[in-house]
Amino acid sequence: MKTVKLSKRATNMQASPIRKLYDAANEAKERGTHIYHVNIGQPDIKTPKSFVKALKEFEQDVIEYAPSHGMKECHEAYQRYYQNKNIKLKQSEIVITTGGSEAIVFALAAVTDPGDEVLVFEPFYTNYNGFASMVGTKLRPITLNINDGFHLPDSSEIESKISQKTKAILLCNPNNPTGTVYTKKELDAVVKIAEKYNLFLIADEVYSDFVFSGKHKSLLQYPQVEDKVIVIDSVSKKYSSCGVRIGAFISRNQDLIATAIKLGQARLSVATIEQRAAAKMIGKQENYLKKTVAEYQKRRDVVFEELQKIKGVTLSKPEGAFYNIVGLPIKDAEHFAKWLLEEFSYQGATVMVAPAEGFYATKGKGKNEIRIAYVLKSSDMRKAMKILEKGLEEYQKNN
Amino acid sequence: MKTVKLSKRATNMQASPIRKLYDAANEAKERGTHIYHVNIGQPDIKTPKSFVKALKEFEQDVIEYAPSHGMKECHEAYQRYYQNKNIKLKQSEIVITTGGSEAIVFALAAVTDPGDEVLVFEPFYTNYNGFASMVGTKLRPITLNINDGFHLPDSSEIESKISQKTKAILLCNPNNPTGTVYTKKELDAVVKIAEKYNLFLIADEVYSDFVFSGKHKSLLQYPQVEDKVIVIDSVSKKYSSCGVRIGAFISRNQDLIATAIKLGQARLSVATIEQRAAAKMIGKQENYLKKTVAEYQKRRDVVFEELQKIKGVTLSKPEGAFYNIVGLPIKDAEHFAKWLLEEFSYQGATVMVAPAEGFYATKGKGKNEIRIAYVLKSSDMRKAMKILEKGLEEYQKNN
Repeated sequence: MKTVKLSKRATNMQASPIRKLYDAANEAKERGTHIYHVNIGQPDIKTPKSFVKALKEFEQDVIEYAPSHGMKECHEAYQRYYQNKNIKLKQSEIVITTGGSEAIVFALAAVTDPGDEVLVFEPFYTNYNGFASMVGTKLRPITLNINDGFHLPDSSEIESKISQKTKAILLCNPNNPTGTVYTKKELDAVVKIAEKYNLFLIADEVYSDFVFSGKHKSLLQYPQVEDKVIVIDSVSKKYSSCGVRIGAFISRNQDLIATAIKLGQARLSVATIEQRAAAKMIGKQENYLKKTVAEYQKRRDVVFEELQKIKGVTLSKPEGAFYNIVGLPIKDAEHFAKWLLEEFSYQGATVMVAPAEGFYATKGKGKNEIRIAYVLKSSDMRKAMKILEKGLEEYQKNN
Repeated sequence: MKTVKLSKRATNMQASPIRKLYDAANEAKERGTHIYHVNIGQPDIKTPKSFVKALKEFEQDVIEYAPSHGMKECHEAYQRYYQNKNIKLKQSEIVITTGGSEAIVFALAAVTDPGDEVLVFEPFYTNYNGFASMVGTKLRPITLNINDGFHLPDSSEIESKISQKTKAILLCNPNNPTGTVYTKKELDAVVKIAEKYNLFLIADEVYSDFVFSGKHKSLLQYPQVEDKVIVIDSVSKKYSSCGVRIGAFISRNQDLIATAIKLGQARLSVATIEQRAAAKMIGKQENYLKKTVAEYQKRRDVVFEELQKIKGVTLSKPEGAFYNIVGLPIKDAEHFAKWLLEEFSYQGATVMVAPAEGFYATKGKGKNEIRIAYVLKSSDMRKAMKILEKGLEEYQKNN
């Protein structure tokens, strides 16, 4: 029997780097070790009650396809949500998607053909790699520096990476995995580059509510590039509804919207029940969002305070989202992360972190960095950081 | 301001051909004309009560990500479902997807690189075009003949379309849009070709329960190609849950499964609530399925009986699914379909059909054919076919 060969894209796709650690984590749990999971962006914040209430009120004899571009009540909800931020959107500028993930796939498919390039600042959200593989886009990384708090480089450095194949710049703001929020000056510069080189701007703004000083500036607020901007949104983090899978593809360029709708027609629709329930929540939870942001800010402060006590670490105070990239005084953070699970515990517990190497496309970058997601309550985050400190001490003695 | 240019794939993608008729349909409704919608595979059958019950019982403070490959209860449910058909599956051979749609995208991405080809028999489910555009696959059509009931051609004809670029054969069985169920002999022949040329087989079997005589044979029942077969499944039609968006990617080739999981990790997870509720329904609704199939069979008989009375039509008796392709004694079925909505009514009602041209990739094919979906109760289907007959008479007088 001849063996069939999978596609190159399938073979070259990396399995999630964090997943590799799950076996070690499960074994630690079997040994009775408690694990503080700060390795993944799955918060412990409760989903708004209005969502589950809407779920229970769902009545429909036949659960039918929703319209491919999304249900009217969801368009209205996102319109309301953006109106709360003083951003005016028409309903025809919003396509509802299966999570932010699908919106990114649609964006890449809309602006690139296989082999075309999109610039992205590394470290970046690992899953961009998977989406790019799926549609055949090449991600071209521009490396940021932990010592600058992962802020953007000079325009000249960005411009030096632009080629004939470059179709867009993909920007995650506030940033996963760095926690950086780009300043108005930085965004102005990126917008200028997009104008100069006629590039699309894909703005992943799923953390836009989580900014700890000042206000988030959306790329929707730049009328001079309104034909170029696609904003990605999602209920996952804002409403702690990761398992709900509702997102949005937003653009004022009607050709982009028409493309998203065509791609949406192919997959028919987004889950009807989720849309109905999400519509009761999106743009109606201003107090919930305020409380959530305050909670994340408290955690951010605790994590930063504790991390600063650790000898030899490099870090900046995160400005948004709920992540922090930390440089460690060791050579191989992946080895350390595995060691924490396999060989270490402190008072019956250990901590699972995400090695940052997986967030870089350039080989060898980020090898001594980890990402911490402050998705647990402050007291747990404090304990987790203490374990990290103790673990690091012990690890350095033996490695 | 320079205008940004969308990708070629975006520009070349066709909007859903049926959508073009929706404006005409809405205008007819505004005039007070009742429309029998037999143009789309959205059945009127009630979703099982167990699904909505499970929905109402959903309790979770934080709606978290599900595992990327799907929730255990969903794997168990599909295992049970296939066991009912005497097909043994391991849970590790099943990846839960967002509808059958996502499973097809995963399959194409797993077996083709951009520019590679997949053979498909036309007329075929239009959305395959959208999925192929998304991942850069070329669909190579093999035209079937309405006079053979759209059964498969000789192996030599299939083999003549195979090139170095061909990676897979995509087979929808029972077929949307033709209603054809392939015989064991036809499947044997396709399997032999896959072995001979070392091709993957992507089997879209979402209608597998809807077979009106004999039993459906799944490609999972061919051990000699178990490394090559991917089966696509979905709850949409079987459990009349089109808006639920739960499907499955099934394969005994663990490399294919690993790829589907990597693609699944990129988009994180499938909706948690839907998976939980679907797991209570999949493989537990044998009576429901029996009743549903009997209902479709009744409709099939009514539709076939009525269509046979119409002068000059070409058709075969559908063997499965809930569609029928009908050749009409006119030149342009799209024009006729639009005319039915814009200029015709009979006793205050008209009928919306799908012009079949959109189901062909070869230009000019299927221009005089329409697809009828028997998704309405028998009495309505009978009325709809009567309107079609009257409309055709009138149309032929004036066109």
